[in-house]
Amino acid sequence: MIADNQQERALITENQKWFLAGFIEGEGSVSVSIKKHPTAKFGYILDPSFNLYQHKDREEILYFAKYMFRTGRIYPKPGNEDVLVYAIESRKTLLEKVIPFFDKYLLYSTRKEDLVKFEKIVRDLENKKHQTKEGLIEMIHIAYSMNMNGKQRKRKKEEIINEILRG
Amino acid sequence: MIADNQQERALITENQKWFLAGFIEGEGSVSVSIKKHPTAKFGYILDPSFNLYQHKDREEILYFAKYMFRTGRIYPKPGNEDVLVYAIESRKTLLEKVIPFFDKYLLYSTRKEDLVKFEKIVRDLENKKHQTKEGLIEMIHIAYSMNMNGKQRKRKKEEIINEILRG
Repeated sequence: MIADNQQERALITENQKWFLAGFIEGEGSVSVSIKKHPTAKFGYILDPSFNLYQHKDREEILYFAKYMFRTGRIYPKPGNEDVLVYAIESRKTLLEKVIPFFDKYLLYSTRKEDLVKFEKIVRDLENKKHQTKEGLIEMIHIAYSMNMNGKQRKRKKEEIINEILRG
Repeated sequence: MIADNQQERALITENQKWFLAGFIEGEGSVSVSIKKHPTAKFGYILDPSFNLYQHKDREEILYFAKYMFRTGRIYPKPGNEDVLVYAIESRKTLLEKVIPFFDKYLLYSTRKEDLVKFEKIVRDLENKKHQTKEGLIEMIHIAYSMNMNGKQRKRKKEEIINEILRG
């Protein structure tokens, strides 16, 4: 898709961006992990990440995405090494490159609701909303309402919120 | 993505086509089923089909694809009713709409090799190549070399070819 072995970086066309957006519509996901962290103000941190998946036999498209966003890393999916994951976790990149891309090219995504929630959480982190107890709890509510109401989560939302309230 | 409840059909933009192509890159597949058939000249028929998959919660994009190609059907995936399949099996549509779409919008697909083989088989069927024994056998060889060398196939290629040679 691209010729990267030149001195100058190939320009990415609008067509390629729309193509990549459609690929993200199918194979991408946004999520916000909630992790215990000993030095966090209320004992928990929120980690937003954008992930894109593909079978290793078709890895070029992940490298193309990485070329476009100019950041992130590609690694085998834990538990299924035939699949590769391209992940962007840098808050700065999410704000400056990924969210503007979503806003333009995934405006009509069937995942729009999750994208909007993701964007809100990233901006809230930037605005340090998580440094008040109420702010953090609101963000956790939003995070848990993403991705089919967090059915993949290990812990119950109430468990985490009660721990924060007691803390 | 589209407003279909109007008298006039909404025009599909180039951007939407590139988006759909990227989605097909992730969630689409082409395949050629080989089925026993009592009235076929050599006892077997080849059935090319284009399929596009998505979780039923995000079915809009399949309806959008159907709107664009103006044909095909959407149904629950056998064995996993949470997933919907959009399928085009009509030879005429494959030739007149799907293959030209692939040729323009999936030119750099990581699935390009399979797309080329698929296109060849559809054209060979159109040119009645399957009506000679040698032609049919060549087409079966190509079909079996698709989709990671037919690892999802139930029967061995040799079994089918031997049956045709004996027939």
